[in-house]
Parts: sequence; structure tokens; C-alpha cells
Amino acid sequence: MKKEKSKGVLFDCCRGGRIGLPEAVFCQGKPWPILLDLLERFQDSPILFTRLEPEVFEKAPLVLRQKYDYEPISRTAFAAAQPDQGDLGRVALVSAGSADAPVVREAARTISYLGYRHTLYEDAGVAGIWRLDGKIEEINAHHVVIVVAGLDAALASVLGGLTPRPIVAVPTSVGYGLARGGESALSSMLVSCAPGVTVMNIDNGYGAACAAARILKLLAE
Amino acid sequence: MKKEKSKGVLFDCCRGGRIGLPEAVFCQGKPWPILLDLLERFQDSPILFTRLEPEVFEKAPLVLRQKYDYEPISRTAFAAAQPDQGDLGRVALVSAGSADAPVVREAARTISYLGYRHTLYEDAGVAGIWRLDGKIEEINAHHVVIVVAGLDAALASVLGGLTPRPIVAVPTSVGYGLARGGESALSSMLVSCAPGVTVMNIDNGYGAACAAARILKLLAE
Amino acid sequence: MKKEKSKGVLFDCCRGGRIGLPEAVFCQGKPWPILLDLLERFQDSPILFTRLEPEVFEKAPLVLRQKYDYEPISRTAFAAAQPDQGDLGRVALVSAGSADAPVVREAARTISYLGYRHTLYEDAGVAGIWRLDGKIEEINAHHVVIVVAGLDAALASVLGGLTPRPIVAVPTSVGYGLARGGESALSSMLVSCAPGVTVMNIDNGYGAACAAARILKLLAE
Amino acid sequence: MKKEKSKGVLFDCCRGGRIGLPEAVFCQGKPWPILLDLLERFQDSPILFTRLEPEVFEKAPLVLRQKYDYEPISRTAFAAAQPDQGDLGRVALVSAGSADAPVVREAARTISYLGYRHTLYEDAGVAGIWRLDGKIEEINAHHVVIVVAGLDAALASVLGGLTPRPIVAVPTSVGYGLARGGESALSSMLVSCAPGVTVMNIDNGYGAACAAARILKLLAE
Amino acid sequence: MKKEKSKGVLFDCCRGGRIGLPEAVFCQGKPWPILLDLLERFQDSPILFTRLEPEVFEKAPLVLRQKYDYEPISRTAFAAAQPDQGDLGRVALVSAGSADAPVVREAARTISYLGYRHTLYEDAGVAGIWRLDGKIEEINAHHVVIVVAGLDAALASVLGGLTPRPIVAVPTSVGYGLARGGESALSSMLVSCAPGVTVMNIDNGYGAACAAARILKLLAE
Amino acid sequence: MKKEKSKGVLFDCCRGGRIGLPEAVFCQGKPWPILLDLLERFQDSPILFTRLEPEVFEKAPLVLRQKYDYEPISRTAFAAAQPDQGDLGRVALVSAGSADAPVVREAARTISYLGYRHTLYEDAGVAGIWRLDGKIEEINAHHVVIVVAGLDAALASVLGGLTPRPIVAVPTSVGYGLARGGESALSSMLVSCAPGVTVMNIDNGYGAACAAARILKLLAE
Amino acid sequence: MKKEKSKGVLFDCCRGGRIGLPEAVFCQGKPWPILLDLLERFQDSPILFTRLEPEVFEKAPLVLRQKYDYEPISRTAFAAAQPDQGDLGRVALVSAGSADAPVVREAARTISYLGYRHTLYEDAGVAGIWRLDGKIEEINAHHVVIVVAGLDAALASVLGGLTPRPIVAVPTSVGYGLARGGESALSSMLVSCAPGVTVMNIDNGYGAACAAARILKLLAE
Amino acid sequence: MKKEKSKGVLFDCCRGGRIGLPEAVFCQGKPWPILLDLLERFQDSPILFTRLEPEVFEKAPLVLRQKYDYEPISRTAFAAAQPDQGDLGRVALVSAGSADAPVVREAARTISYLGYRHTLYEDAGVAGIWRLDGKIEEINAHHVVIVVAGLDAALASVLGGLTPRPIVAVPTSVGYGLARGGESALSSMLVSCAPGVTVMNIDNGYGAACAAARILKLLAE
Repeated sequence: MKKEKSKGVLFDCCRGGRIGLPEAVFCQGKPWPILLDLLERFQDSPILFTRLEPEVFEKAPLVLRQKYDYEPISRTAFAAAQPDQGDLGRVALVSAGSADAPVVREAARTISYLGYRHTLYEDAGVAGIWRLDGKIEEINAHHVVIVVAGLDAALASVLGGLTPRPIVAVPTSVGYGLARGGESALSSMLVSCAPGVTVMNIDNGYGAACAAARILKLLAE
Repeated sequence: MKKEKSKGVLFDCCRGGRIGLPEAVFCQGKPWPILLDLLERFQDSPILFTRLEPEVFEKAPLVLRQKYDYEPISRTAFAAAQPDQGDLGRVALVSAGSADAPVVREAARTISYLGYRHTLYEDAGVAGIWRLDGKIEEINAHHVVIVVAGLDAALASVLGGLTPRPIVAVPTSVGYGLARGGESALSSMLVSCAPGVTVMNIDNGYGAACAAARILKLLAE
Repeated sequence: MKKEKSKGVLFDCCRGGRIGLPEAVFCQGKPWPILLDLLERFQDSPILFTRLEPEVFEKAPLVLRQKYDYEPISRTAFAAAQPDQGDLGRVALVSAGSADAPVVREAARTISYLGYRHTLYEDAGVAGIWRLDGKIEEINAHHVVIVVAGLDAALASVLGGLTPRPIVAVPTSVGYGLARGGESALSSMLVSCAPGVTVMNIDNGYGAACAAARILKLLAE
Repeated sequence: MKKEKSKGVLFDCCRGGRIGLPEAVFCQGKPWPILLDLLERFQDSPILFTRLEPEVFEKAPLVLRQKYDYEPISRTAFAAAQPDQGDLGRVALVSAGSADAPVVREAARTISYLGYRHTLYEDAGVAGIWRLDGKIEEINAHHVVIVVAGLDAALASVLGGLTPRPIVAVPTSVGYGLARGGESALSSMLVSCAPGVTVMNIDNGYGAACAAARILKLLAE
Repeated sequence: MKKEKSKGVLFDCCRGGRIGLPEAVFCQGKPWPILLDLLERFQDSPILFTRLEPEVFEKAPLVLRQKYDYEPISRTAFAAAQPDQGDLGRVALVSAGSADAPVVREAARTISYLGYRHTLYEDAGVAGIWRLDGKIEEINAHHVVIVVAGLDAALASVLGGLTPRPIVAVPTSVGYGLARGGESALSSMLVSCAPGVTVMNIDNGYGAACAAARILKLLAE
Repeated sequence: MKKEKSKGVLFDCCRGGRIGLPEAVFCQGKPWPILLDLLERFQDSPILFTRLEPEVFEKAPLVLRQKYDYEPISRTAFAAAQPDQGDLGRVALVSAGSADAPVVREAARTISYLGYRHTLYEDAGVAGIWRLDGKIEEINAHHVVIVVAGLDAALASVLGGLTPRPIVAVPTSVGYGLARGGESALSSMLVSCAPGVTVMNIDNGYGAACAAARILKLLAE
Repeated sequence: MKKEKSKGVLFDCCRGGRIGLPEAVFCQGKPWPILLDLLERFQDSPILFTRLEPEVFEKAPLVLRQKYDYEPISRTAFAAAQPDQGDLGRVALVSAGSADAPVVREAARTISYLGYRHTLYEDAGVAGIWRLDGKIEEINAHHVVIVVAGLDAALASVLGGLTPRPIVAVPTSVGYGLARGGESALSSMLVSCAPGVTVMNIDNGYGAACAAARILKLLAE
Repeated sequence: MKKEKSKGVLFDCCRGGRIGLPEAVFCQGKPWPILLDLLERFQDSPILFTRLEPEVFEKAPLVLRQKYDYEPISRTAFAAAQPDQGDLGRVALVSAGSADAPVVREAARTISYLGYRHTLYEDAGVAGIWRLDGKIEEINAHHVVIVVAGLDAALASVLGGLTPRPIVAVPTSVGYGLARGGESALSSMLVSCAPGVTVMNIDNGYGAACAAARILKLLAE
């Protein structure tokens, strides 16, 4: 049989330099040997690991794990963060319920890792929606608003009508039946009556943080 | 060739008596000769015609049209209404935008035809959602709330969290793209965070009024 | 790295007072530490826990479990029910087959917890549909009818044509192939030929009971 | 440019002989010149034309039209029927509402054209479902039952539980919203609780008649 | 708390008598205590159990299992079959590949249980399709043809064009990607170019056998 | 019959003040009398009309039309724009093909109307994708990038990997078959490999411009 | 208002040179002024126009039309073809029915325009499938086989099992109900049991010809 | 009970001879006894096993396993390959990311097994897309290009615009949310702007290799 010739990782790795966002490793579905290798290789580098489940991370040797700042709800890890940007960028993270925690905290951790500030407002779901008004001034003191919600995602529309800030909406896969793994929330956000609400893929907290970072970098120029 | 033997309308017509809701004629898609025949047959009866488009109704002779109370936005007609129930049943109808008018007014007309009272609150969409609070006491003075909305249908969730009344939600087919002819609004209403919100088929204002009437009749017993 | 500032549960908890329905805890997907904390916190309060699987509940210490009225088929628990409303509200619960038991019993338990009466009619599926006629007077002696069915959900249409009562239909996720996790039953209920049938999300027995409670509270005023 | 070489109709036409069902011409979407040519060619043959809309048929010259037995609701035409089979095959056709007429009558006409007998029971929809019982003996005196229904298609399940006869169910595309052009009815029929209900494509009255004919031919052997 | 009043199995059980098909127990998803109870109750009765997985059946005591004729691939069991109908009814079962075995054998076992004869033609998939011609006379010597296929389900169309017999097509859930759990095969069968092919729900071998039995009973009259 | 009491436009209109984005009138589907009334009412105001088809606009009297700056490809009109923001905000608009013109130009016109600058790069589709590199410095001299594409929407991913700017992607409904009215492009954009690409509803050029404006206003503070 | 700066067609047009396939103009949906301009510009060039409906083409002045080789069924036009490749490339085009003519002939015309030979086998649908065997040697004398079919698309699987040639399958949008605008045929082709069948978008005859040309060019090297 | 008569594998096995592609065994879902039997039967034959998971293969006795060339990432095994074709056929395999490895390597292994050469270019995803240009000459030195990608599948369109070679695109099921198990990538590939890109079912690396082999065999003639 002929030998397979793999050209391996074909291209160089300058994405960070090109678009100003550092590399991230999406761990879900990656075989453990490859993950372990990456954890070892980047134990002193500012590389973010996402979707790293606790039961997977625990398979790494203790000494390696200790090199990493790991947070289990957000399922993120990094050995070193990006340089702190001081108070140049502030992101408000608002989520609808406690089931949205993994997603909103993945966004929060990514914001932190990228060197920006954030405030986390959880459990702002339907019972409390109309009372957001009382908090809105505080939320508007941030530069970007990330809203995380599943089910009917009404929170995105309500916030979109209350804040003039750039708003990034992340649907979550919570719920059953017609929630359809987050597709219902996604649709609601895309057809939101509030103008200028932008949307990410279902459960993509990391992507929302990157979208916010693109804006914050612009502010810093 | 053998003659087709049609047993015609096979069964008697006592639905009204059985479940307390009179007959209605759904006109959409019915051939004109059949519709004309029905309009002639019921020109002195309390029968409701729904989805009767203006350009269709106008094909009827003037003298026949004059027998009917026709309203073009709701696309409804009836020659005689059901007996007035006085102030026994009051329905609040709340819609999100002017594009929802045909649906919310079909519901309104059906409520009137059935002999009940209603108040119509239109254009209560996202910009004004959080201010519904100021109107909520007035809305709660009704027995049933029908909420009509398309797109993200956030109005249903917000109202569902503000009123203790039975609430019937009707998604509408307004919008484009991910609105998907009303399926996005339907999903949002079905997975609403507010407990006990009941849902009808897309654009089914007539059905919502019937659902309200089932409740109002119960009150009258 | 910057410390994450979480504003925790941002808003107060007066939903019960506002819409007259007490709090419920949806357990599915919630991490065990959070659930355990909630079970401890509410061991003397009239709070309903739904979707609490037996194997999850059993992880709680015996002494804590003994504080709760737990029922495994409905997967519901509460330490104290709402005040008994006597015979003010009676709900007929009709289901199509034994596979629908978890859903119809979630509805039944919620009705009980809310202080109302109910009668449970199970296994009224297709073989027996046309004989429902013999039971219909008894069913009509209740104030609200909740119908629970999967697959073709024909039961909802048939009952809708036989009872004048408010009717809340709950599709279930039983079946395979085109049953599509309950979507087939949901569609059938939404396009039912019977006028005024209202519909809940797939498997949402709790929501159906809340919808019924909104009506029963209205009767009590 | 090279000349296109078309091998035209590649194969002989003995389908009729092979499976015992004569040729049919599906007219929908066929360009008029081709249709006209087929109408001329078969003006003395026992060929069935289906989906031949009145406004299309009227474009043919009067003398040609007079050669055909054309029926506008079923949108079918044929110049000669198949040999009459006497009372060897009797089909009961049951439909839910008047909007199903084009489909149930396409089936009826095809049955007639094939030389079999049928009885047509229209408007047997939800209001009358439970009273089908009174007609069931008469229906069972036929060899095959074709049931035609849209929306929730509850009629198929109810009939399937009442008759021991082979039953062919045809969903129709009537309705709006979640009716989804007949997909809701199709799903309901496929997951029907009644055992042994077979299903055709949406609106396929012709196919249902062919399925019945396959059974009737078997009886005649 | 109020006691739940369940009216249990509300209706009598004469389906067998009414439509001539005996009861069957669909085991999938039923809790073990209920299943065990049913296995005990029917250990001397002609009741068919379907979707009874080997690992479930093995939980029953040996003495009980010995009362049943159990077959693991079809996942069916019965303690007694229906009366043998001799050579009155013969069904040809044709499947496309070995992955379809559970479905085609569920049909085969149901046919046997109902007292009819069958012949099983497996692995007649695409490579061999055009050679079916050589077997077609033998297949046509049966009264009904059941065709079982997944993926593109081309076998149904090809057989439909070769046999004049009543043909019942069952799509199976084999395959991945666009096979979509059998929906691709289902669609192919419903839009088959061969006239009069009737279709069952995905993987519904039991239903196909019942459909065949409806035809065979007609022959026996 | 009881008089319908409509509370008309229930709430005040301060959305502009609240979130800093002026009102817009979505014309599609609005009845002509209402549209005409709005055109008359706002003939001296800075209100944007979107989805105003040429054949609709032409129904207005010439004198009224002359009050408006109307552009037929973008189907937008306004009598007065918002105050010019000088060079404070610059948006690069990149589209894949000429079929995307209505959407990218709706965005362009909205940007202009809101007082910001833009540059339009059209026809940057697949043939030219890899050559975008030569233009990327010029594109990066803008503050925000809006990318408009249908079909495979590969342009969004490629641009997302080349620019560090905030990027708003708008899928368009061009194409046929699997393009599915823009859903294919929408999915591609939502799962783009490029980090931080935000997405709007299909064909929502207006929304993309609003999203850009939220960012530009932040820059101006 | 600021002037819109459009960079027009941003990039050069060397696609032809790069991948060896000349430019084509997809006419569907393009506004007439743009189309007319393109027809004028390319009246002496070897550019292919696809999806050019007869009623659109007829709007061009006679003198311009006379410059073009236009064929109405395929809806294609070109003023000059590519250089004739002699007998270097031969494509067999096989379609299932006459409703597939527009698609298979678009492929045929594109093959001709590109300078290759083809033979057209139409109406090879289900009735004749098993008799393809007699024609297979002739078909195999071509270099590439393009198969065009709608509905169940069984033809693709059958041919795929009979020819060793590269095979490009094109699903068509013919049919109704579950045909779902060609999605049923597309799925069937993608999950075909025949190994190595490649698939194009629904109705994409042009693309199939390009795929064939990529192979034929390889042969010519 | 009547004995089941199975005609077993009905037809002969000359597919290899007929279309020039040898048999392959698709292992996924096949019961272990059948698989073991096939492994034993073909331990000296050139038969390819696909989708043979490591944990399944390991159940075979060591002595049997040693007869096979097994590769765990591609999940393929064969005891003997097809005759080496020397340098007659060269395939370039390009994949977007490491998650696509199982699919691209299944294709690679099948190519090897069939006796052809290949080069593997992995990790050519979005960050590196525009730099493919530097590698394109090397890729074009192959006869066929197989491109494997999930998510937005932009790689297929970009490559399709850069190479004149026959191109076979395989979507993969990597990703979450709107990736929808590979349907998003599949749609992107089918509507690719690059002309003549052919597409396989999701994750079908084996099929892509067969499609390539059909072309390579043509070259060898």
C-alpha cells in the first residue's frame, strides 16, 4: 500500500496579527491525545481553550493543570491572558436565566482573557424584563452589550429597545420541544423588532466576545 | 361511465348546539359559486364569514351585499350577530404593530359577532413594551387577553408576565427571511417564559376569539 | 486577570404576586449543586419542582427528601401546596395512551399543587375515540378540559368538537419516525378543525395547568 | 455549433400491460403545445388526463374538447374509459370538507375511469366524526376505503379504527400556517394510531385510486 | 393535597372485533413494571408484542420467557398466534439491504402471527435492482408485496413498475447525513413515479403487515 | 353590533431619543392609504421609508414625490436626512454580486441618511475572493465593514479572516434550490470560521446599517 | 446627502483563464436594463446566457436577437460558442421525464457551447428503468454521464449501478407535495446506494455541464 | 407458526465487474456477529471495510486483526488492496480543519486501497484560505481534487475558483448550532459560486474516493 503523504498544517499562523484576535482552541470533539499535546505546547502562552469540559480537563496531569486558569462553568482555560487594556473597554453581559450560565460565562471569560472589563447581569428573564428600565443607565455605561437568552429570547428585543449601545445577541440551546435546540431563540433574535441587534450562532459565547473585541479595539485606536 | 353518487353533506349540523359556538364559513379557497350560494342562503342568519377578501365580496350583487355587515380589514361579514351578552364578557385585544391589523381585527369582529365586548390596543410593539406597565391595570379589567404579534412575538411573553388573566396568543405571518411566514413568532409564543400562555395557529384570529368565548361562556353559567 | 463581577439574581421575585401564579423550579439541565441548594431553601415553602427525575431526587439526603411530596411518574415535588380552593375549580384531564402518562400527570400534579380539583381520564386513544360520547357529560361537568396526546393527536380534535368547555391541548413527544418528537402532534392540534382549541409546547403539562389556573382564578373572582 | 441529438422517448410503452394500470398524463406544468398534441393523439383512446385545469382545457378547439369527458372540479378528462368491471370493485370515498373536493373527486373520477364503482361521502369532518358510526356498516359494504383530509386529518384515524377494510389515506394541502401545504395532515396520517392505514403523497387522488385498483384487480382474479 | 382520581383504562377493548385486527403492545418506552405486567397477563393469549428489545425481554423470569415465541432481530414476541389461514394469504417481503432486517422481519413476524404465509427476499438493493426482473413472476405469485428500503428507496419505485400487486412501502431509518433518519426514503416512496404505491411511517414493519392483512381478509370473504 | 373601541397607537414615539436611532417606516405589505398618509405626514421630516417599491411610490402625487429623495434600487426614500456627522463614521460595504444590489444599497442609503460616510465595493464574489487581499488596506481604513452575500456567502468568512474591523454580515435571498431563499447564506455566516462575525436577518440591509450606526455613535462620544 | 461612491466591478475578469471555464451570465432576477446592456456588450463574444426566459429575450430588439443562438426550452443564448473540441469529449445526458426537459437541455446546450459532443436520452423514467440495460453499452461509449431526474430520482441510483463512467446527477424541481421543490430528489441522489454518484444543486443543468467539462479537459491534456 | 422462508442474498455479486468499483462493507450499525463473519470471510480478499470503529474492530481475535491493514482515524480496514495503478491517478485531498480528519482520511484510504496516489493537505481552513494561491500549482498537478470541509465550507468555493480540475466536495458534520450536523456545509457546497463543483453526502469520504476513481479509470482507458 502506498504511504499517505500528509502536508500537515499547511499554512503559517499569523491570524492573530492579521485580524488582531489571538488563536483559540475549540476542544469539543478533538481527540484527547491532540488536546493534551496542545495543552502542553501552550502552557506558557496566551492561548484560549474553549469547550473544555471538566471531565476532559481532569485527565491532564496535575502539574499541567496548575499552569492553567481553568473555570468549569464556562469550560474555558488559558495559561496567560492578553495584555490588560485597563478601562478602555467595558462590556455588559445580560442573560435571561441560570440555564444560560455556560454561554454567558464563556463570553465573560473570553472578554477577560482579551484584556477587557465586563459586568455580568444574570437572571434578567421574563419576570423581570419590564424592570430592566431601572438598571438601564448602569448598563449603558458600558461600551458594548452582549445579551444571552434561550427560548423566546424576548430579552434581546427588550434590551435592544432600551440601549443605544452596540448589541450582540447570543441564542442558547436551553429548553425542549419547539425550543428546537436554540433555533427558536435564534429566529426571534434575527427578526427582532429592535433595530440593529446583531446575532451569533447558538451557544457561541466566544464569538460574541470576539465581536465585542472588534468594537473595543476600534475605540482604542 | 358510471354516475358519481355523492352523499353530499353527510351529517346534520348541530355543532353550534353541541359546543355552543355557531357555524362559521371559512371563505379562502372556496370557489365563488359555492360562496355566493352560502351568502345567499345565510343573508338572514347569524352566520360568520371569515377570510372574505374585499375583491371577492364585491362580486356579490349590491342588494345581497347590503344585507351584510362587512368589514374589509378583518375580512369578515355577517348578516346578523349572536345575541348581545351585555357586559358579561370583556376581551382585551393587544397587537404589536399595524401589520397585525387583519388578524387582531378578525378576532375583534368575531368577539363582537359572538355578543361580547372588547377593547383594542394596537401598536404595542417593542418600542413601547416596557411601558405596557402603565396600561396593565386597564387591561386586567377585562376577562381574557388576546395578544397578536409577529416576528419575535416578544409582546406575548411580556404581557404574560404582567397579567393574571387567561391569555391567548396568536402569531402572525408578517415579516420576511427568518420570520418564515409566522413560524418564528409561533415558536416564540410556544416556548414563552411566561407560564400559562396558550397559543393558536398562525393568523388564526377567529380561533382566538372562539377560545375566549369558551371561557366567557363558562363565566356566564 | 480581572475578577468577574456578577450581579447575581438581578431582580426581585414578585412574579407570583403579579400574575397570581407561584414560582416553579424547572429542574431539567440544572446542575445538582444548584438544585440541592434550591431543595434545601424551599423545604418549607409552597414551591413546585418540575422535571425532577427520580435518579436525581434520590441524590438528596433522606431527611430532605422526606420534607417533600414527590411523585416519580410526573417527576414533580413540593414541600407545601397552595391553599385548597375547595370545589371552586375542577379540571378534566384526558390522555390518549399510557405513554402520555408523564405529561398528563405533570399537569395533574400541578393542578393539585395549585389547590384545584381534577379527574384523570387515561387511555382514551383512537380505539375508543368515538365512544367518548358516553363520557362527555361527565367531562363537561368540569370547568376546563386539558387534552394530552401524541402521534396524530386526533383526540384533541374529537374532544374539541364534543365539549363547550375551554380546552387546552398538550402534544407529547411519544412515537418515532414522522412523529418527529411531538411536532406532528403539535401541528395537528394547531390546525384542529374544532374551533377554539388552544395549544401548549410539546410535553408542557405544567404550562397547561397554569393556563387552566388562569381561567379558574377568573371564575373565583 | 453541434446539432443536439435527442433519442426522444427512449423506451416502449407497455407499462399498462406490465402492471395492469393504463397510462395517465399528468398535465400540470406541461407546455401547451405538448398537451394539445397529447389531447389530439388520444382523442379516441382510453387515456386519463389529470391536473388539467379548466382554463387550460378551454384552449383546445371545441371539436376536440367534445371528444372528451371532462370534469372541472377533479380536473380530469378521458375520451374513453376502461372496460366496466360491473360490481366487482366498490370503493368508498370519504372526505373531511368541501375544500378537499378537487382531491377526492380526482380519486372518484379515476375509479370510474378504471371501470369500478364508488360512493362519495363528503363533509365528514370533525363536527360529524363521532357520528360516522351510524354510516359505518354502509361504508364497510365497499371493498376499499379512500379517506381524504387536510389539516389535522383526524378523519383518517377515526375511520381506521372503525373499518376493517383496506384504507388508503390522502392528505390535502388545504389550510394555512402550520397546515404547511398538507405536511401536517401527511404526518398525522403516517403516525395514525389506527393500524394498517396506508398513505399517499399530498393531494394525490389519482395515486389513491391506483392503489385501490391494485387491490380490486386482485379480487377479480 | 387532594387525591388524584384516575379513571384508568376508560374504555372497553373490542378493537379486534371491530376492525378485525387483534391487539398489539408497542413496548418501546414503556416502563418495565408495566411491560412485565402485560407479559404476565398475556402469557396464554394471542397478543403480539413489538419493539421488545432482547435486553428488555431478558429481564423477565425464565419461566415467563419460555411461554413466548420470541425473535430478537424483529424484536417481537407472542404466546399464541392467530388461527392459521392456510394458503389464503401470501405476502412477498422484499428488502434492499441487511440493515433493513429489523423492519422487514417485524413485518414478516406480524404476518406469521396473523396466520398468513410470506416469502422473504432480502438484499435486493441497488446493485441487483435491474435483475429483479428475473424474480418478478415468483413475486407476483403472492397477493401483496411489502417493500422495505432506506436511503434512496429506489427499490420501491422499481418494484412498483414491475408488479401489478398491491404494494406497501416501508422506509427505514438506515443511513447518515441526508438520509435524515429515514425521511429521505419516505419522501422518495411518497413521490414514486410508479402509480399506486402506498406508504407507511418510517420503520413501521408492524403497520405494513396490518395493511396487508386488511387486504388478505378481504380476499377471504 | 357593539362599536369597536381602538386605542390606536397606544404609546408615545420616543424610540429615537431612547436608543439614538430615528424612526423608520417599513412599507412592504402596508396598505396604500396608510402609506400615503405617512408620506404626507413626513414630507418635511427626517424619517426613512424602506422597502418602498417604485411601482408603489409612483402612485403618490408628483408634488409629494418631489419632496422626497427616492432611490429605486434600494427602494428607500426620505424627505430629510439626519445631521451630517462629517468624517466621524466611515462604513465599507462589500457585496458578492449584482443580484445583491437591492440589499447592499438599502444599507448604503440608510448609512447616508443617518449622516455617515460609506464606500461601496460590489461584485467581490468568488472569482475575485482571493484578490480581496489587494484591497484590504483600503477597506480597513473604514470603521465598520458590512458584507452582503447570498448563496454560499463565502465572502463573509474570507473578509472576516482579513479585517480586524467590526463586521456585520447580511445574507441575501438570491439563488434557487438549496439557496432556500437565503437560509443557506444565513447558516454559512452564522457558522463562519472567522471569529466575531455578527449576522443580520436575510435581506436586512437597513438593520445592518443600524448596527453599524450603534458602533459609530459610540466612537463619536 | 453624501454621494454614494461605488467602486463598481471591483476586480478583473480572468476567471476563464484561471479555471478554464468561460464566463456565464445568470439572467434570472437581473433587471432588464442590466441584461440588455450585457446582451449588447457580448453580441460578438463567446459568453453563455442562462435562465433567459423567452418573454424576457423577446424584449430585445430584433437585430440584437439575431446575433444570438437562442433556444427557448433550455432558456440559453450565446453569440459565439467556444472552439469545437471535435470528438474529444462525449457526454451522455439521460433524463427521467419530459418535465425535466428545461434542465437536461440547459446542460446539453452548455455542453455544446463549450465545444463538446453529447447524446440526449429523454423519458428514461421509472416505467423503463429496468430496460436501460439494453442501452447501457451505448451510454458507456460516452466519457461522462449526466443524469437528470425529479421526484424519487430512482434513475440516478439505477444508472449509477450500471455504468462505470463518472456520473453527475441533477435533481429537478418537478412534482408537488413531498417532492418539495426538488429536495426529495436531491436527498435521494445524495444517499444513492450506487457508489461515486456526484450531485449538483436542484435544476442546475449548467453546473452539471461545467462539472463534465472539468473532466473532459483533463482527458484532453 | 409458519416457518419464515428467507431467500437470503437474492442476487449475484458482480457489481465490481459491472461498474469497475469493488465491493465495500459499510460496518456502522451492522450487528457484531454479521461483521465478524464478514471479516473472517474476506481476510484474504481485496474488500474494503468502512466505518469500522476501533472499539468494534478490537473485538475480533488478534489473529484475524493481524490479517488486516487497519487505520483507526479513517476507521477503514482491508486485507488486500486493489492492484497498484502506478502514477496513473493522482488525487489532491484538501481539508479545512483537524476535525475533518476522519472524513478526509476515509477518502485518502479508499484512494490508496483502489490503487491510486494522493496527497493530503489538511488544515487549509479560513485563516489560510487566501494563501491557497501559493499552493495551487502543486494542487493542480493532481488529476482530481477532493475538498472536505464543515461549517461554512468556504474552502470549496475558494478552491473551485482556483483549480480547473474536477472537484468533488464533501461536507462534514463538525460544528454545533446552525451547523446542523453538516447541512449548512452541504448547502454551501451545492450553491457554491464556483462552477462545476460536485457534491457528496455529509461525511461520505468513501463516496468521494469512488467518484474520483470513476474519473481516474476514464483517464487510464
